[in-house]
Amino acid sequence: MADRPPPLAGVTVIDLGQVYQGPYAGLLLAKAGANVIKVEPPHGEPLRAREALGGGASLPLAMLNSNKRTITLNLKSPRGAELMRALARKADVLLENFAPGVMHKLGVGAAVLMADNPRLIYASATGYGLTGPERDNLAMDITIQAASGAIAVTGFADGPPVKAGPAIADFLSGTHLYGAIVTALYERERTGLGRLVEVAMIEAMFPTLASSLGMLHTNRDNPIGRTGNRHSGLAVSPYNVYACQDGWFAIICNNDEHWANLCTAMGRPELADDPRFARNSDRVKNMAATDAAVEAWASGLTRAEIFEATGAHRVPSAPVRELTEVLDNAHMRGRGMIEDIDHPRLGRIAVPGSPMRYHGTAQTPATPSAAAGQDNAEVYRELLGLVGEEVEALRREGVI
Amino acid sequence: MADRPPPLAGVTVIDLGQVYQGPYAGLLLAKAGANVIKVEPPHGEPLRAREALGGGASLPLAMLNSNKRTITLNLKSPRGAELMRALARKADVLLENFAPGVMHKLGVGAAVLMADNPRLIYASATGYGLTGPERDNLAMDITIQAASGAIAVTGFADGPPVKAGPAIADFLSGTHLYGAIVTALYERERTGLGRLVEVAMIEAMFPTLASSLGMLHTNRDNPIGRTGNRHSGLAVSPYNVYACQDGWFAIICNNDEHWANLCTAMGRPELADDPRFARNSDRVKNMAATDAAVEAWASGLTRAEIFEATGAHRVPSAPVRELTEVLDNAHMRGRGMIEDIDHPRLGRIAVPGSPMRYHGTAQTPATPSAAAGQDNAEVYRELLGLVGEEVEALRREGVI
Repeated sequence: MADRPPPLAGVTVIDLGQVYQGPYAGLLLAKAGANVIKVEPPHGEPLRAREALGGGASLPLAMLNSNKRTITLNLKSPRGAELMRALARKADVLLENFAPGVMHKLGVGAAVLMADNPRLIYASATGYGLTGPERDNLAMDITIQAASGAIAVTGFADGPPVKAGPAIADFLSGTHLYGAIVTALYERERTGLGRLVEVAMIEAMFPTLASSLGMLHTNRDNPIGRTGNRHSGLAVSPYNVYACQDGWFAIICNNDEHWANLCTAMGRPELADDPRFARNSDRVKNMAATDAAVEAWASGLTRAEIFEATGAHRVPSAPVRELTEVLDNAHMRGRGMIEDIDHPRLGRIAVPGSPMRYHGTAQTPATPSAAAGQDNAEVYRELLGLVGEEVEALRREGVI
Repeated sequence: MADRPPPLAGVTVIDLGQVYQGPYAGLLLAKAGANVIKVEPPHGEPLRAREALGGGASLPLAMLNSNKRTITLNLKSPRGAELMRALARKADVLLENFAPGVMHKLGVGAAVLMADNPRLIYASATGYGLTGPERDNLAMDITIQAASGAIAVTGFADGPPVKAGPAIADFLSGTHLYGAIVTALYERERTGLGRLVEVAMIEAMFPTLASSLGMLHTNRDNPIGRTGNRHSGLAVSPYNVYACQDGWFAIICNNDEHWANLCTAMGRPELADDPRFARNSDRVKNMAATDAAVEAWASGLTRAEIFEATGAHRVPSAPVRELTEVLDNAHMRGRGMIEDIDHPRLGRIAVPGSPMRYHGTAQTPATPSAAAGQDNAEVYRELLGLVGEEVEALRREGVI
């Protein structure tokens, strides 16, 4: 059973994604076995502009566009729009993360393409969605982190708000986009019909605020806001990141058994029965004292020493890893989630696999991201039957 | 076309999810039309323990378990394991986010259940995955934020690292879990076979670090780390959160046209041609001066005044919204992403819809999360044909 075809074998995807959000959905589709064709304007998608900065600034493009063939197409030219329609007739899925209305204005909106091809799944990812009063607000990861509430609840109570370092709005919405696409593919097997599916970045963020919203429910008139490294709902203790000899260390006691185990690990079993700390509700009331007890222990140790103690006593915990440690992580490398490849422009780089794993099928090894238009000849021949001089003429005329 | 059935109509899901990650995948399945049955131990899943804290601490459970029927089952009793096998024979999907090996030890692991029902999709979400040297490390959102690098890259350069306030590791991996499940459902329509699919929280986090990893690629010997509210790769400027009269405001100029527009909005068109700021590569070199120019302008205005100016000139930007503003947001409420319901235990609360939207089908209105075991009678009759006294006996014996 280790040789089943990948689950999306035979699915053809037109990936008009740009920057992080759309391309990540395309990457997940490619890694699940789909035939993904990345379509960019002749000068390349916006993320390619960062190549001007040199070095690692173009690494993200390479990280998110493995395993795709890449063609160029000028949607603003009438012939380009025609070619887009022709491509969409041959595709199972088209995904794009332009602002709302952009594809429609170019004459290649969902209504047109799905009338041409009723089996097409047309997938739109935007900042705020295709409808509603905020529809036309421009959006990037940081602006959605701001508008969604993520920034307001990140950081310390006595400091300014701060965004999450990872591009969470882009990747959460890109992952939802993948989910919506594949859901529609499933449905199409049963109904024969495609769908317009959409994901708004700001909506993909909302459920992630569950802990903070819980606290707000109780403190509507006096909202608490940022909780630093404590639980965002201040509903669990210990739950914090503790300074130690060589960095920081995260510990959480999700229940009283974890706490008792931590007390043993700390060599202070008497704390487990201390009425200030016995139950989670007690520790939440005495959060500062609880944290102080843990910090007093952790501060004298290294991350490795803490982990040895917490691990042995089954307390959920982890070192705060620096990025270099993450990149070198033997666990993710051994599982194929981080893969080194030789990239024609960037040299030896690490690229991600897919976090979605299908037992019974080997993971799809990464092929390097292509230069803009690198696969024009092959793809335009394969999908539209255009050959040699026809493709060259399109290039000369600025259509591709 | 506004009355198509939801895409997952007819799909039956056994949702053993607990806390945030698994239940969110189950919620997305339910909102897409699946028949989701939440299965908890007789005392309820771990998140129910927070009900002891009262008030909003139990709001997250209600947010993530709308539209599910809820039954109890003691998997640790032999009869309970038997019933689990019987339920899985009737299901299309079983999802769980126990630690690796837990279901196997109870005699209801993927191999057993899929031998009983080769069409079953068995979906596992764990902290580190089902294989590899870190497999058995215990995981919760905060420990994965720590181990994945997310905490190391969040916060200010001159301050301690800080976790993202939203539960990003839980929700990113829960969304990936949904995607993997639905991918396997699609595949099953073509092959007739189920799959074991898995998602590891730590792996779902890795791609989100793209910007930081780009910077690391260039500065491997002198990694930069936390960038506060600046771009995590320091590859874009302006890209920051600026203090203003009534809070903070996020602005990003993703290209030189955005910058020129911002200069006009600020009443300083001359800056667009200033050689220190003309191109993004110039602004990145002169990031402090660029930020100072924007901050000087923003600091005298309110969020609404800034947004009026940036919006009129098409500069991607957004106010840093407080959580109360997010909860009251008319846009998400109008689109049905935030829905008020009357909950039997919590009263009037707001719960999320699904960020995945299927045009042509009305969204599934929220039904309140159920009490543990609330639907025992109905579900055990419907799926297993158990009636009245049989179900009551199971309850008396502690099996359900």
